[in-house]
Amino acid sequence: MKTGIIFIMAALALSVGCSQPPKTSGTMEQSDKPAYALVIHGGAGTIRRENMTPEMETAYLTALNTALDIGEKILQDGGSSMDAVEAVIVFLEDTPLFNAGRGAVFTNTGKNELDASIMHGADLDAGAVGGVTIVKNPIRLARAVMEKSPHVMLSGPGAETFAIEQGIDTVSPEYFFTQDRWESLQRAKERENQSTGSLFPADYTNKFGTVGCVALDKNGDIVAGTSTGGMTNKRYGRIGDTPIIGGGNYANNATCGVSGTGHGEFFIRYTVAHDVSALMEYKGLSLAEAADLVVHKKLKDAGGEGGLIALDKNGNVAMPFNSDGMYRGYAKPGQREVAIYKD
Amino acid sequence: MKTGIIFIMAALALSVGCSQPPKTSGTMEQSDKPAYALVIHGGAGTIRRENMTPEMETAYLTALNTALDIGEKILQDGGSSMDAVEAVIVFLEDTPLFNAGRGAVFTNTGKNELDASIMHGADLDAGAVGGVTIVKNPIRLARAVMEKSPHVMLSGPGAETFAIEQGIDTVSPEYFFTQDRWESLQRAKERENQSTGSLFPADYTNKFGTVGCVALDKNGDIVAGTSTGGMTNKRYGRIGDTPIIGGGNYANNATCGVSGTGHGEFFIRYTVAHDVSALMEYKGLSLAEAADLVVHKKLKDAGGEGGLIALDKNGNVAMPFNSDGMYRGYAKPGQREVAIYKD
Repeated sequence: MKTGIIFIMAALALSVGCSQPPKTSGTMEQSDKPAYALVIHGGAGTIRRENMTPEMETAYLTALNTALDIGEKILQDGGSSMDAVEAVIVFLEDTPLFNAGRGAVFTNTGKNELDASIMHGADLDAGAVGGVTIVKNPIRLARAVMEKSPHVMLSGPGAETFAIEQGIDTVSPEYFFTQDRWESLQRAKERENQSTGSLFPADYTNKFGTVGCVALDKNGDIVAGTSTGGMTNKRYGRIGDTPIIGGGNYANNATCGVSGTGHGEFFIRYTVAHDVSALMEYKGLSLAEAADLVVHKKLKDAGGEGGLIALDKNGNVAMPFNSDGMYRGYAKPGQREVAIYKD
Repeated sequence: MKTGIIFIMAALALSVGCSQPPKTSGTMEQSDKPAYALVIHGGAGTIRRENMTPEMETAYLTALNTALDIGEKILQDGGSSMDAVEAVIVFLEDTPLFNAGRGAVFTNTGKNELDASIMHGADLDAGAVGGVTIVKNPIRLARAVMEKSPHVMLSGPGAETFAIEQGIDTVSPEYFFTQDRWESLQRAKERENQSTGSLFPADYTNKFGTVGCVALDKNGDIVAGTSTGGMTNKRYGRIGDTPIIGGGNYANNATCGVSGTGHGEFFIRYTVAHDVSALMEYKGLSLAEAADLVVHKKLKDAGGEGGLIALDKNGNVAMPFNSDGMYRGYAKPGQREVAIYKD
């Protein structure tokens, strides 16, 4: 695992759109549209090889591969991108390795407040939830908001009431507890006590994480979903970019689907997910060009750390990030890659 | 007041950018940039002349003119668009005529849950609050989130804790009570009881409203602010487009500032405010072209009722809406218009 990158089918991997250099505006990287495409992330941030044990590395790569297996099976069997995205994110939420669902980071008051959203590129329908504390899989609730309510975004206890009425699985808040995240909160509080007395974290290193999935099915439907526990030690009912349609999540069959991960405030201010789509639709950029411009130029210049996963209507995939690492992977018929680090 | 439109300076009114037909892509409607520009709205919806008394019409038009007076004074004196937008929205929030601050509509449980956001086009900085119940002027809290926290969006009780810590005026929830809105809730509940038993309103007629202001100051800074009480009889902690940066509110000095009002779910799904900006920036549309395309084509085709106010970096103003009416107005040096109906 020295490279941190598994090439399941090395010969094919070189043809991946996301690793190609930008091309002339308006061109598409791939003309042979695959039967399906699937791309995932498990968060971006200060993820360095020197801080990782071989066991942890294997655990992350195995989880990413399992997530791709789950989504790929659904798409191969002719299932919808909606079902694939939901199932993949449910798995990532249930896996304590990632900051979403079980394994979510703790707020300042020792709670787990979860955000999620899902968007359907066919009709721009969307559902989002913010600040839920007892919903086992926030992505399921986001989908229920989209399908079973006339609303897009529900929040807090009201969203939980809706979850219960809809028969969405709820759990005791302790379900989300993981020792590792609890210790992160204690460390964050210690740093805070030693600092200037500011009520806000002085730096965001390792304080954020998200999971996301974008899928294209045989019908050409693009769905994007994102789920998170937010920032360690967050206060004041802070809501990040994950449930903000156009910020951390967006899908449009005419262009692409995008799921973001990183310092959420920048993703909101730069309307990152919709900006990638708008650059393709209005300026004629390719997916790779649009995604690179947003992540490596706009966000980077602003100091916004993070990355995104995206795929376009032709099945091209992009996974740019400007942080040290991003847990990520994609699958298409005969192609798969999972990766963690930059190199 | 037969026309519902006051031409304060009739001779100049014909030169307003927003009333001109769309021109060739990429052109700007007005080359003489004014020293300042200010545009406001007090909500769009089923606002018909036949349902309005002369007294109510006068009250609305007077309030719109007073709001413009407040903002114009600040801008004329060399104040910032940030201060102008905040002061105008504070006035509109304090005026019970509009669904924001005092005069906000009631939720299903008889509460007033307020949302607001503000965005600074100079650096794309932004602040937003969702679901606050004791903050007298949510727009002030949104500005404090932007200026005094590293976050963009705070929600619920956490946002209220932040308000108290920042010395933002809080009030007893009864402050927001108005008899008129209370009766609207009772009527909505009666209709609900007589209907199919759905927990969601069958139609949205007269159920939404918002206030907004966009200003351009002498430094070329564009600021957009929006504030609302949301939908009558809303449930489940529903959050609309008002605090969604890129949805109901957006500002970018390079393009324009936008504040939306209408059926918020559509404004979120169509990322309305950022879309107007992206159409200008990436496709070269004028403000009027971009705003008209989004309101009269995209939103209308989707069934999304509402409108928006916008101004661009050259001081052009647009106020399109696809509903029966929109409380609206604008002011520039030597020009002013306030209006309610379509004709």
